[in-house]
Amino acid sequence: MSQASAPATTLQDIISHAKEYGFVFPSSEIYDGLQAVYDYGQNGVELKNNLKQVWWKAMTQLHDNIVGIDAAIFMHPLTWKASGHVDGFNDPMIDNKDSKKRYRADQLLEGKAEEYEAAGEPEKAAALLAKMGALLGAEKLDEVRELIIEEKIVCPISKTLNWTEVRQFNLMFSTQVGSVAEDSSNIYLRPETAQGIFVNFLNVQKSGRMKVPFGIAQIGKAFRNEIVARQFIFRMREFEQMEMQFFIKPGTEMEWYNTWKDTRLKFHKAIGLPADKLKYHDHDKLAHYANAAVDIEYQFPFGFREIEGIHSRTDFDLKNHQELSKKKQQYFDPELGEDGKAIGNYIPYVVETSVGADRLFLATFCNAFTQETGEKERTYLKLHPALAPIKAAVLPLVKKDGLAEKAQEIANSLKSSFRTIYDDGGAIGKRYTRQDLIGTPYCIAVDYQTMEDNTVTIRHRDSMEQERIAISALKEKIGYEVAMERILEAI
Amino acid sequence: MSQASAPATTLQDIISHAKEYGFVFPSSEIYDGLQAVYDYGQNGVELKNNLKQVWWKAMTQLHDNIVGIDAAIFMHPLTWKASGHVDGFNDPMIDNKDSKKRYRADQLLEGKAEEYEAAGEPEKAAALLAKMGALLGAEKLDEVRELIIEEKIVCPISKTLNWTEVRQFNLMFSTQVGSVAEDSSNIYLRPETAQGIFVNFLNVQKSGRMKVPFGIAQIGKAFRNEIVARQFIFRMREFEQMEMQFFIKPGTEMEWYNTWKDTRLKFHKAIGLPADKLKYHDHDKLAHYANAAVDIEYQFPFGFREIEGIHSRTDFDLKNHQELSKKKQQYFDPELGEDGKAIGNYIPYVVETSVGADRLFLATFCNAFTQETGEKERTYLKLHPALAPIKAAVLPLVKKDGLAEKAQEIANSLKSSFRTIYDDGGAIGKRYTRQDLIGTPYCIAVDYQTMEDNTVTIRHRDSMEQERIAISALKEKIGYEVAMERILEAI
Repeated sequence: MSQASAPATTLQDIISHAKEYGFVFPSSEIYDGLQAVYDYGQNGVELKNNLKQVWWKAMTQLHDNIVGIDAAIFMHPLTWKASGHVDGFNDPMIDNKDSKKRYRADQLLEGKAEEYEAAGEPEKAAALLAKMGALLGAEKLDEVRELIIEEKIVCPISKTLNWTEVRQFNLMFSTQVGSVAEDSSNIYLRPETAQGIFVNFLNVQKSGRMKVPFGIAQIGKAFRNEIVARQFIFRMREFEQMEMQFFIKPGTEMEWYNTWKDTRLKFHKAIGLPADKLKYHDHDKLAHYANAAVDIEYQFPFGFREIEGIHSRTDFDLKNHQELSKKKQQYFDPELGEDGKAIGNYIPYVVETSVGADRLFLATFCNAFTQETGEKERTYLKLHPALAPIKAAVLPLVKKDGLAEKAQEIANSLKSSFRTIYDDGGAIGKRYTRQDLIGTPYCIAVDYQTMEDNTVTIRHRDSMEQERIAISALKEKIGYEVAMERILEAI
Repeated sequence: MSQASAPATTLQDIISHAKEYGFVFPSSEIYDGLQAVYDYGQNGVELKNNLKQVWWKAMTQLHDNIVGIDAAIFMHPLTWKASGHVDGFNDPMIDNKDSKKRYRADQLLEGKAEEYEAAGEPEKAAALLAKMGALLGAEKLDEVRELIIEEKIVCPISKTLNWTEVRQFNLMFSTQVGSVAEDSSNIYLRPETAQGIFVNFLNVQKSGRMKVPFGIAQIGKAFRNEIVARQFIFRMREFEQMEMQFFIKPGTEMEWYNTWKDTRLKFHKAIGLPADKLKYHDHDKLAHYANAAVDIEYQFPFGFREIEGIHSRTDFDLKNHQELSKKKQQYFDPELGEDGKAIGNYIPYVVETSVGADRLFLATFCNAFTQETGEKERTYLKLHPALAPIKAAVLPLVKKDGLAEKAQEIANSLKSSFRTIYDDGGAIGKRYTRQDLIGTPYCIAVDYQTMEDNTVTIRHRDSMEQERIAISALKEKIGYEVAMERILEAI
């Protein structure tokens, strides 16, 4: 199969295919959409659920010492004080007084740096970014404004330098809970799922009799009022995280950090992302809570970008929760230390693995999207069978002579085992194409021979090869291939 | 087994067991909790995920003409104008001017009616409730206030009749989206998942080539700023719905309404809820969007309460969305009508099935909670094997002589197939009890005989009977029992 002349896949190809074949729709589209929010369609939801399930099983089912939880989106507001989000989860904003338009101050400066790059002055670009980083890090917002004016960065609309001061804008969404005036309070939509794990650390440890090292995994929605949300479902205001916080003895963090770094890369390979499209990216600058941090990046059509972060978070979160809640967040270690003495109580350190579920969906979708040219020209989704929205389609060659009924009977016999559909609409070639476009790994054709000897043909999506097998063998053959177990065994 | 003298289960028993064994924790407990919000613990999340999965499969996998979606919590605000929530999703509030306390006006009157009931004056109670219903229905809020004063209902704190006017309080949570002033807008956290399906009706119908009758299913969070939230996870401010909207030809709604009424009851029986604890409850008063409505109620420790609603919603939602969005919400029916003419375009009618996932969790948990007295005194969770958080526990009789290693080897060999744990902590009787308390259907004991002939004993949770089987037969035997397929086949 020659793919030599296949055009490079663009993000626009992905967005169009996702919409046309029921994977991702713009949210509230009949009302002209809601910026940076998307809905998963009938095929998208199955693919996303399969990804979530395989992550969940890989985390909890494969490890005796990792369990899940599902904490609420609403949390006590002090949670976000302890985590640092109330004071520090900000973007710097600036307004132009003439146009009344608002911008992110850092993005204005980054735009200027890109101009220097484009003009062949990379050292100027680097110097500007370094200066900006230092000023923002030190919260010297007045000087950030001065830098913008110094660099003569004008408002794209008014073309003037008439800027307001720079102010910090908090990215958390807030809402009012409680209808009775004196009981009502301002709460936040969680900007990350991690804190739901930290505040439940002792509940889980005690009720589950967990022994350090152990992990708590969670899948759930998080919300960030992003100033500039772009690149389709890569950066949304409402998104889903798959996070695991691994609680360990202080001093063992680099060992566990490296273990999880390896394990998580293996996971992405096991679900079908190719090694040459994945890479590690060490963080240049560490977040306030981390002492080591790496991203696993995937090569999207718009470049290598983060799909997962692995962070050594020290005892930052548990210590702050202990301080603010006045509730001890300690683990009693029954083991003996190297000195032969009981180890006793300590606040565990934490290594976190945090995947963006929507980003993993996008990576999987981009990777599966295949355009073949030449003789066998076609577009199909090369999804791992365990991840495909529909596992098998049963297609009668014609609707007459009892073939339709036979095909329906076969589809029904497979349905309680895995998602199988029946389709009799149009020429069989068109029906194969329809399944290719949504990534169905197996098409089962029912023909006249079926009526005689109870065999069918199975067409394989990727090779387009067909083989003849007995109806009675279908369930086991396809069931084996589409089971999550195949992925779990590969991790 | 005598259960004759077992005490009746109270909601407090359920709450305690749920917390102690890692099913449900109060949210943000270290900060003294957040009212009417709960977190699912390590065993709760597995039970809830299993319930969600079996509902999802029962809806989408078993029906070619039902597909799922996953729409965002954030939707365009006009959605809630069209659905009637902006104008009509209210509770009537009243304040006492002396105590400054706020109450729900309807609940004050209902309290008075209860007093009449208790005093043996049921006709007075009925008359009061009827009058209140009529006034609220007609939005005559002034007269609701007068009725409260007439009935001499005083504030429980100040004991005075010094009431403010009655005002409507909207139950939707709102938040501000967009940081750039001119683009920012007030949006709501969805109070129900149904509208995410309606606004995507045509996207799914067209991209999925769906033909009426067809359904769209969705599982997701919804939020309501309940004035009085109580009864544990039965009424929460953040909760999860499992909804399916079934699009049909106008005129066929009663037929489909009855079909879904039957099918949904069958589902609850298939997951293990007993027939005598389930009943239908027809709505006395229909919601503005419905022309027929019934609840499926389960007998909780606090009485029969709704776990699912089946509603014939007519074309209320699609028609309103069409009007407000100016986008046609019509289906083109290619069939011929009884008169031989093409049916053509129409707005479909809708029959909805809507389950509270948290309520189904609570019903399942209450039903499984079993206290046996007498000779075999014990507490255990009699969960359907497909729903149990952990499917099997492998327990070495002792830790020495290679039994621990053998047990671990067996646990590892089952892990990629279903959730299996290894436990060597404490006497074997204690370990059986631990598994009983979280509802594990099978305990596999590894003893000295295992080392000789590669057989183990399986202990069955409900009967406590043990049988000896070959290690090589475990995967198939337990795998068969714990598979979701058993439930799906029973629906």
